Amino acid sequence: LSSENISYLLYPESVAVAGASASPDKFGYRVLFNIVHNGFKGRIYPVNPRESSVLGLEAFSSVADIPGEVDLAVVTVPPVGVKQVVQDCVKKGVRAVIVITAGFSEIGGHGVVLEAEISEMARRAGLALAGPNCVGLVSTHVDLYCHMMPFYPSRGPVAIVAQSGSVADMIASRLGDHGLGTSHLISSGNEAVLNVGDYLEYLAGDERASVVLAYIEGIRDGRRFLQAAKKLTARKPLIVLKAGNTAAGARAALSHTAALAGDDRIINSLLRQAGALRVEDMEELVDAACAFSNQPLPCGNRVGIIAPGGGWGVMAADACTQRGLDVATLDRATLDKLDSFLPPTWSHGNPVDTVAGVTGHAAEMVQALLESPSIDGLIVLGMIGGLQSIWKYIRAGSGGKVITDGLAHGAMDHFDTYFREMMTLKERFGKPTAVTIILPIKTEIITETASRLTRETGTTCYSSFTQTIRAYSALSDYAAYLRKIGMHGGRV
Amino acid sequence: LSSENISYLLYPESVAVAGASASPDKFGYRVLFNIVHNGFKGRIYPVNPRESSVLGLEAFSSVADIPGEVDLAVVTVPPVGVKQVVQDCVKKGVRAVIVITAGFSEIGGHGVVLEAEISEMARRAGLALAGPNCVGLVSTHVDLYCHMMPFYPSRGPVAIVAQSGSVADMIASRLGDHGLGTSHLISSGNEAVLNVGDYLEYLAGDERASVVLAYIEGIRDGRRFLQAAKKLTARKPLIVLKAGNTAAGARAALSHTAALAGDDRIINSLLRQAGALRVEDMEELVDAACAFSNQPLPCGNRVGIIAPGGGWGVMAADACTQRGLDVATLDRATLDKLDSFLPPTWSHGNPVDTVAGVTGHAAEMVQALLESPSIDGLIVLGMIGGLQSIWKYIRAGSGGKVITDGLAHGAMDHFDTYFREMMTLKERFGKPTAVTIILPIKTEIITETASRLTRETGTTCYSSFTQTIRAYSALSDYAAYLRKIGMHGGRV
Repeated sequence: LSSENISYLLYPESVAVAGASASPDKFGYRVLFNIVHNGFKGRIYPVNPRESSVLGLEAFSSVADIPGEVDLAVVTVPPVGVKQVVQDCVKKGVRAVIVITAGFSEIGGHGVVLEAEISEMARRAGLALAGPNCVGLVSTHVDLYCHMMPFYPSRGPVAIVAQSGSVADMIASRLGDHGLGTSHLISSGNEAVLNVGDYLEYLAGDERASVVLAYIEGIRDGRRFLQAAKKLTARKPLIVLKAGNTAAGARAALSHTAALAGDDRIINSLLRQAGALRVEDMEELVDAACAFSNQPLPCGNRVGIIAPGGGWGVMAADACTQRGLDVATLDRATLDKLDSFLPPTWSHGNPVDTVAGVTGHAAEMVQALLESPSIDGLIVLGMIGGLQSIWKYIRAGSGGKVITDGLAHGAMDHFDTYFREMMTLKERFGKPTAVTIILPIKTEIITETASRLTRETGTTCYSSFTQTIRAYSALSDYAAYLRKIGMHGGRV
Repeated sequence: LSSENISYLLYPESVAVAGASASPDKFGYRVLFNIVHNGFKGRIYPVNPRESSVLGLEAFSSVADIPGEVDLAVVTVPPVGVKQVVQDCVKKGVRAVIVITAGFSEIGGHGVVLEAEISEMARRAGLALAGPNCVGLVSTHVDLYCHMMPFYPSRGPVAIVAQSGSVADMIASRLGDHGLGTSHLISSGNEAVLNVGDYLEYLAGDERASVVLAYIEGIRDGRRFLQAAKKLTARKPLIVLKAGNTAAGARAALSHTAALAGDDRIINSLLRQAGALRVEDMEELVDAACAFSNQPLPCGNRVGIIAPGGGWGVMAADACTQRGLDVATLDRATLDKLDSFLPPTWSHGNPVDTVAGVTGHAAEMVQALLESPSIDGLIVLGMIGGLQSIWKYIRAGSGGKVITDGLAHGAMDHFDTYFREMMTLKERFGKPTAVTIILPIKTEIITETASRLTRETGTTCYSSFTQTIRAYSALSDYAAYLRKIGMHGGRV
């Protein structure tokens, strides 16, 4: 199958929905509704032998009866009818098909036979077939929401390929929380014809995707995957969440999409060879995607850490080391510079622990580290120098507990200024600068501030340093891979 | 030092503040302010040789000059003056002292000498000395906020002992997000006299604390720690976040509180012997504390998993297995019961993946699993059966994107009912039932709903299944420990 076929899947000019229905409980209604009501400019053909129109559009009794060309057909009819629809598509010369219907290889027995028949038919005709047993796909650049879920991610740079539609939707939703949109969302299902490797191959050449995320339960064709992933990672990062790593998980994967999870060590080695980054959970996947979207790549793995209290520095140093980052030894000149304005009790090393007393010089400290030749990037935890302004609020109050909310907002105002100063310095020095709010204030207020700053500055503001360091290390790992294959001279 | 001394630290009837100041930039102001303005009923004595009154209270030129008895003295004077104050305290017969001042063993050199002198003086006099280099303590049952931070946790069942005041405050704040209060918050600092072991020994016997959390950079007296922790864990759970596990982290710990981080394998073995649960980060610490506060202990490690889509089931099965939980094989009777109302495409096993089509029977499914003899507890991911009600909102709208917020609220309404049904079943069957919202909806809305449900039902509603499974496994691990030492017959 050539890339051209997949382009009909993602950028069709005409779409047929086989099984289109006026009943909102049917997938055939939901898919059609989503295509019709989200701005798709191409032609839309409902297919239903028992209706003359569906959702106000003329309906056809079979795909073969549609007058014009059909680039893409979506199939939502019951399992027993799928084969006939695919046959009709082949006859009609349809270029791509998405089979949403479930009840194939994932249920074993006759489902396996049925899937094999459909797969053979599609392969012979050169039909780009996605699924079966999937939720469909979204291609935001043509406003195509060709899936059965009531979920509409907005346009952006991140492509998602997933062997679980529900996981894909969730990833897109979490990216949206960070103001990050989706280019393509592909639910690959049982992968009877097209598999993850095929989609990666295509996405490698599609400029609309600048970061690719994959949720994988099993890799059906290791060689194909490796070749496609390598091609992709030479151009853009590929982050993989691989599930089914335990016996119980592998059993669940088999009954989900008939995927064979495979030996976890082999998967690790495959991903390493491919230059893909493996993450442990969905949160990490999303955090890494954000980092790639709004931080420069570091030129090496040496990090500086700024902490508003010793404990945070200790934990961050642990987390950085465990992720392969080097908590850099600071050069004499940088130490002297810091000594000139920090209080005598500062940690005199990296992490730079400023101790609770520091009440100014936050930006100078950040700058001193960013311009240091000893570090390739910076991890900043919490807020430096805000205590004084917080106590101004406290003083004005009528008792500690009463004014906690006012205090929170005071601290957030202070953090706001600090964050923006750091973002200016980040641009100036071109080194990744990943910042976390750490304050004993209601999570709701923290989250609200973090979201707002992310939106307004275009750089993710994290609210847990575990997240920050995971995301930073993804940048660092990918930069190291690019250097290894000779693709990364310096900054992105 | 007997427990009696520590009780003067946590439940004093009179408190002196050495270094009390009217200048809001000084710690001596902040500590006094916090004691005065948060409802403490005991006597409060500012000590400052240059003032006749501070914050409206009569000031004394030294601790020795105070007329009545002094149970607790807090020291905020500069390092060079600390020795004299401690001497005065000994002379006066003060029972407990908190030295907030920094600049002792953590800076090396003369700081080490100074700390040794103070420590010896306190030990000889039987003085319960906390610190130096700490933020102070909070004892909510007597409304004592004897610390320098503008942070006021409310009363509750969780005690926090930490070698970082800033980390302790953060933990208390995150517990507060889950509606969980603090009994004691102790910042142990450099532990010149009292160490983590001493506090644990005391908390073992204090009924006001029913869960104990510890943030530790180094264990100064392994034998003492083991004996105290063992005593405590036979009565209530102890959850430990140990930092300084890497060379970089250990270096940072040394400059923070002069703690020697120690060999991580030895620490692990010590914690295992002590029956303490070790967690990886602060989020996990907090999640586990919540689980102990609102879930029964399971009688074994067999879990049932309900997932609203295959991918979640696969990932949850992995996470459970990695945490030592047994993704149980369901008995015939339970399988038959589920078969009687689930659609034919359900996973026919554990995890119970209901596939997107299920639109009812959510509570029956939960009940079938909770009454199964094959499982000891239940992990529920996402929402089952909400799609139909969501599409009712969609249908009424004027286009997908436009009505996404309405959809979110519709889904949340549905989830609300489902969660409450599950909480009723949890009480009825007495098995832990840990629930996570998983929906591709703005995190802000998810968080708001989760917080509200947690507050209203008294059981934590999680918003990430990684969290849920970590928290559940803490319950299971502690229950296994209690069974091992013969303390746990069945339910809590």
